[in-house]
Amino acid sequence: MPRYRLDIEYDGSGFAGWQMQEGLPSIQGAIQDAIHAYSGEEVRIQGAGRTDAGVHATGQVAHVDLSEPWPARTVMGAINAHLRMAGHRIAILSVAEVEESFNARFSATGRHYRYRIINRRAPLALDLGQAWLVPRRLDAEEMAEAARRLIGQHDFTTFRSVHCQAKNPIRTLDRLDVVRSGEAIDFIVSARAFLHNQVRSMVGTLKRVGEGAWTADMVQGALEACDRKRCGAMAPSDGLFLTGVDYDITPEA
Amino acid sequence: MPRYRLDIEYDGSGFAGWQMQEGLPSIQGAIQDAIHAYSGEEVRIQGAGRTDAGVHATGQVAHVDLSEPWPARTVMGAINAHLRMAGHRIAILSVAEVEESFNARFSATGRHYRYRIINRRAPLALDLGQAWLVPRRLDAEEMAEAARRLIGQHDFTTFRSVHCQAKNPIRTLDRLDVVRSGEAIDFIVSARAFLHNQVRSMVGTLKRVGEGAWTADMVQGALEACDRKRCGAMAPSDGLFLTGVDYDITPEA
Repeated sequence: MPRYRLDIEYDGSGFAGWQMQEGLPSIQGAIQDAIHAYSGEEVRIQGAGRTDAGVHATGQVAHVDLSEPWPARTVMGAINAHLRMAGHRIAILSVAEVEESFNARFSATGRHYRYRIINRRAPLALDLGQAWLVPRRLDAEEMAEAARRLIGQHDFTTFRSVHCQAKNPIRTLDRLDVVRSGEAIDFIVSARAFLHNQVRSMVGTLKRVGEGAWTADMVQGALEACDRKRCGAMAPSDGLFLTGVDYDITPEA
Repeated sequence: MPRYRLDIEYDGSGFAGWQMQEGLPSIQGAIQDAIHAYSGEEVRIQGAGRTDAGVHATGQVAHVDLSEPWPARTVMGAINAHLRMAGHRIAILSVAEVEESFNARFSATGRHYRYRIINRRAPLALDLGQAWLVPRRLDAEEMAEAARRLIGQHDFTTFRSVHCQAKNPIRTLDRLDVVRSGEAIDFIVSARAFLHNQVRSMVGTLKRVGEGAWTADMVQGALEACDRKRCGAMAPSDGLFLTGVDYDITPEA
């Protein structure tokens, strides 16, 4: 059975998340339905990041096994055609046939997210659903200073969902940059892997620093406390984008 | 009667354009309805650029006269609240009380547009309705070279709609940059004033150059012919944004 790597973009609004859930619309389910519609095959695709309800992606990666060796271009065109017919805002950016050893989730060596705040009083019109609107003026430099306290290997219990299923709360945060460009403030975040809700928990906490309610020392104290109750209110899903996934190699079959 | 300047952002999808048209949804009409809803006043606002159906704005400017001297912050908050309740993707970015001599349309000394192409094979998911998807690889440098032939004062008859009502087809194009950034190609366009459909006509023609069908000389020939039939197929409205309007002064009242 040939294995394919899919690179995927989507607007997560209106979906219950990446992962299939009984009776709810999911990105995974929509793509599986599209594959079924053109090939008749009941497949199960696996994604690198199980994004939550309302979270978007510009660079999700998944793999799927098909029973026939379709050309990659055909697979891409067929899935996109059926996604469009179904009215989904999901696009397959590229398809490549890969070796069976490639696993989108378990072969991943890095994951990259971007979280976008629009910092202005006016409501969102063009970026509605694709950013977190924060009316109160935020100090990006203070947030960047506090963000640096989170870099490195830590027990991130403070910044994980109570529903997080990971056995080990220790993660290594490689990057957490805070960049202001006009009224947009982007958080650029990278790690090998994240805990559930980790990015939104960190952004929600850093926003408290940006508005002057918290200091960088308080963020460090919250991290060291390993206590979920010390986390700032979680940032909404709208602003979060899975922007890319790293692999040591993507072996073409 | 105090006069107010409104700076406005909107997603033009689903609107018949800026200007009021009997029985059709318009940006102008939606804002006038919002003003009526909070103040009871039947007003008529005037915009700097009469954007077409489906065209967006990040920096539209309009003026309106109200019978009472409301604080500018109150006007902004009230209009935005009513726009949101009506479910419109229109946001008032700022409101300032200005002198009666200020006219959003006739005082304007410059208008700025951005046209965005996404140049890739995959369909649009996140930018759906906010860019023109062109699957065939475009050469941005060739387009930039051809664009330079359009700079300056010319008779732009070739690049105006047959419905254009301007008496004089001569305009001075101050800027037409073509900038590629990844898969996005942006056209940055500035002039004191434009003919109807001028930006979309120029972009549609330059796209022919980008795909190798036309040369820069052919674009120059089309310009000099002053013949609408020599224009390339007009670019769709999705990619066009009114990004700003210049005034010599915006006199605060």
